[in-house]
Amino acid sequence: MIMESDATRAMDSENRTYWESELETLPRAELEKLQLRRLNESLHLAARSPHYAKCAQIGRMLREGIKSIEQIRELPFTTKDDLRQDFPWGFLAADKREVIRLHSSSGTTGNPTVVFHNQHDLASWANLMARSLYAAGVRQTDVFQNMSGYGLFTGGLGFQYGIERLGCLSIPAGAGNSLRQIKLMRDFGTTVAHAIPSYLGRLHEVFLAEGLDPRRDTQLHTLVIGAEPHTEEQRRRIEAMFGVKAYNSFGLSEMNGPGVAFECTEQNGLHIWEDAYIVEIIDPQTLEPLPDGERGELVMTTLDRQAMPVIRYRTRDLTRILPGACPCGRTHRRIDRITGRSDDMFIIKGCNVFPMQVEGILMKLPEVGDNYRIILDHLDDQDEMIVEVELKREWFSGDVERLTRLQRRIAHLLRDEVLLRPLVRLVEPGSLPRTESKAVRVIDRRKTSK
Amino acid sequence: MIMESDATRAMDSENRTYWESELETLPRAELEKLQLRRLNESLHLAARSPHYAKCAQIGRMLREGIKSIEQIRELPFTTKDDLRQDFPWGFLAADKREVIRLHSSSGTTGNPTVVFHNQHDLASWANLMARSLYAAGVRQTDVFQNMSGYGLFTGGLGFQYGIERLGCLSIPAGAGNSLRQIKLMRDFGTTVAHAIPSYLGRLHEVFLAEGLDPRRDTQLHTLVIGAEPHTEEQRRRIEAMFGVKAYNSFGLSEMNGPGVAFECTEQNGLHIWEDAYIVEIIDPQTLEPLPDGERGELVMTTLDRQAMPVIRYRTRDLTRILPGACPCGRTHRRIDRITGRSDDMFIIKGCNVFPMQVEGILMKLPEVGDNYRIILDHLDDQDEMIVEVELKREWFSGDVERLTRLQRRIAHLLRDEVLLRPLVRLVEPGSLPRTESKAVRVIDRRKTSK
Ligand SMILES: [Zn+2]
Ligand SMILES: [Zn+2]
Repeated sequence: MIMESDATRAMDSENRTYWESELETLPRAELEKLQLRRLNESLHLAARSPHYAKCAQIGRMLREGIKSIEQIRELPFTTKDDLRQDFPWGFLAADKREVIRLHSSSGTTGNPTVVFHNQHDLASWANLMARSLYAAGVRQTDVFQNMSGYGLFTGGLGFQYGIERLGCLSIPAGAGNSLRQIKLMRDFGTTVAHAIPSYLGRLHEVFLAEGLDPRRDTQLHTLVIGAEPHTEEQRRRIEAMFGVKAYNSFGLSEMNGPGVAFECTEQNGLHIWEDAYIVEIIDPQTLEPLPDGERGELVMTTLDRQAMPVIRYRTRDLTRILPGACPCGRTHRRIDRITGRSDDMFIIKGCNVFPMQVEGILMKLPEVGDNYRIILDHLDDQDEMIVEVELKREWFSGDVERLTRLQRRIAHLLRDEVLLRPLVRLVEPGSLPRTESKAVRVIDRRKTSK
Repeated sequence: MIMESDATRAMDSENRTYWESELETLPRAELEKLQLRRLNESLHLAARSPHYAKCAQIGRMLREGIKSIEQIRELPFTTKDDLRQDFPWGFLAADKREVIRLHSSSGTTGNPTVVFHNQHDLASWANLMARSLYAAGVRQTDVFQNMSGYGLFTGGLGFQYGIERLGCLSIPAGAGNSLRQIKLMRDFGTTVAHAIPSYLGRLHEVFLAEGLDPRRDTQLHTLVIGAEPHTEEQRRRIEAMFGVKAYNSFGLSEMNGPGVAFECTEQNGLHIWEDAYIVEIIDPQTLEPLPDGERGELVMTTLDRQAMPVIRYRTRDLTRILPGACPCGRTHRRIDRITGRSDDMFIIKGCNVFPMQVEGILMKLPEVGDNYRIILDHLDDQDEMIVEVELKREWFSGDVERLTRLQRRIAHLLRDEVLLRPLVRLVEPGSLPRTESKAVRVIDRRKTSK
């Protein structure tokens, strides 16, 4: 009754506003009833896993019955360390024979983690991914180039199954190899592409080096960007560079991967799919719940996963619930873009700094290019935060006085934001190291130089 | 009526002999009736594509009706050059909106090629892949590590969908990174893995370097090897190194990718799925059909592909139909292992040589290691074929006379096979270049040294 049939979907796929009208616009009271029912099912399943079988609170709650979503606060959190400790099979809640895929972190440092999926889980994930893309305006008629790495990384297969579920023509391009990406885009008239934001700056440079302008020489109208925190300014730049709308995608492998929360065409925060997850925001210090609007750590509970339910997972991602309803009509609440991770924060000279705060300031300045990095070093017997900033070509000119003024202005703006005056180095465009995977923004040399 | 229901399959998956009993053991007369019906459908679909719409013979055959499979010989061949010439949309037989995936060659030299798939095509491919693995003894209870590259290369997604369809626990490991491959195998108790044969020698070296023996320190019982021609001797070596059964997998992207033909547990040739393909063997020079048992070029016609049917595709792969029935009871005919490609052949001093002929000789010798290469060079004013051969550690010893005898013996055996006396160089184990992708076996320096 809640799910629409595939046949209906195929018939009118171009005319509908939503991928699953009824589920996406469910009145809050009904959505919470659905959550309660599914939470109960998830706890029953979870209790079959060695890890949660040991959890007295889950046992008690299952015996006594769970009456409201808020009762979830009586249950203990699950952390990344829990996942590592009970690696590999400790969170498996299903018969091994039922599991058809795992995604595991590569785990070069510390123990790896793993997530298991059965047939139902993969179908549900693909559906959430299709729903997300549909909300961002992607349609069956689109040609979708996925520039994510495939394999164990969830950005590849996660998007692939969702794109196919939606019915787009998928191009499983994989990560890197910019010249081939450009050729594929032009050969097949790619209209939508998915990539991490730091790669798109690099891809744009290759377009220009080839004498091409992506705004004119491709049919792109939409970019999906995620897997890396980024600012609103960075999004606007990407949109300008490619002449597209760029939508923010959020996910993490512990909650499947991509398709957890996604921007609709309003671009005012990411709808987090509350039929599939219970969302809490907590103070990462006190672990107490925070009210809507206040920024804290995102905590999530799976509601539609059978092989490996996870209860109250501390994502370490910092965000807030955006108050108010979205004009699109979806009743699932929206989270703000991720502004860092609770463990990204570094402390220098007694100040708590999130790299995103620095990025937010830099990306607002028209003189600044797409690349920067923060170096924490021990110089002249004291700790210093050095911010290296690539300027745009036209700004990196011979006028030393103008550069000095800009340098002072940036230092001043950053001091106002992070309450600490950094050393600012303005550098030539293209001089900071480039990467095809996630950019390394913070380099801490304090331990080695002391 | 021919397809079994998923429910039935799940119930008794461990007890059945075949993945699809009825289809796999269909009496030849019925199988050919099915082929005829599907050929007719395929030609109707093909005629919708710009390329085949121009084909007068298809038009005539559709008007007059096709009465027997042999009539296919009246139709023209399709070559890789045709695919390139009509790139990208010339072979598309479906509405673009219906297509949900493409696989394209990277095309660094010459024009790329592309194959399109709709929902039906991907489901059919996944089913052929599952049927193939089931024939090689893989079951739902297995843990399957796919060491193929993902993305546009068909070995990744092709196997992935098939493994999930079969119901194994899939580990989408991707290519390379041997230490991680080994860790995944041990962490999750991998029982089946898929890789290209030349990579497995390298992986084995890494096992040994880590002080591990894959026969003792893994739970592997089956390896699936393909995407690279290899000899029976190479298979036996891989089986001995890993303590497993190794099964030969054959496919090519123009015919989907993997899942075209596969060895059953009898290991006596590869069943080629004749409900999905019409198989011909032709003389690559005269283009005339060859009788069963004679080696020639494999020509294939898709019977179950909707978005992009391909008629009489010249695969350039050299093989033969193995006469006689297989004890396993499957009625689909078997092809011999691929012994090279019609365009791999090189001509030196007037002799036609296939690299597989050289490999076949070398791999029979107990003194020879897993790596070799053929260099064609212009020395002292004449063309020479130089065969560089890595010896096994225990054979590369100080006894020069013994080495000289071995060198002469190899030269002699090769001359008997290819009718040309090569220069043989015996080299230390590990001294020839290693690769994680397909090994480069032939290096032609004749043009540059002349
Ligand atoms: Zn909205
Ligand atoms: Zn057989």
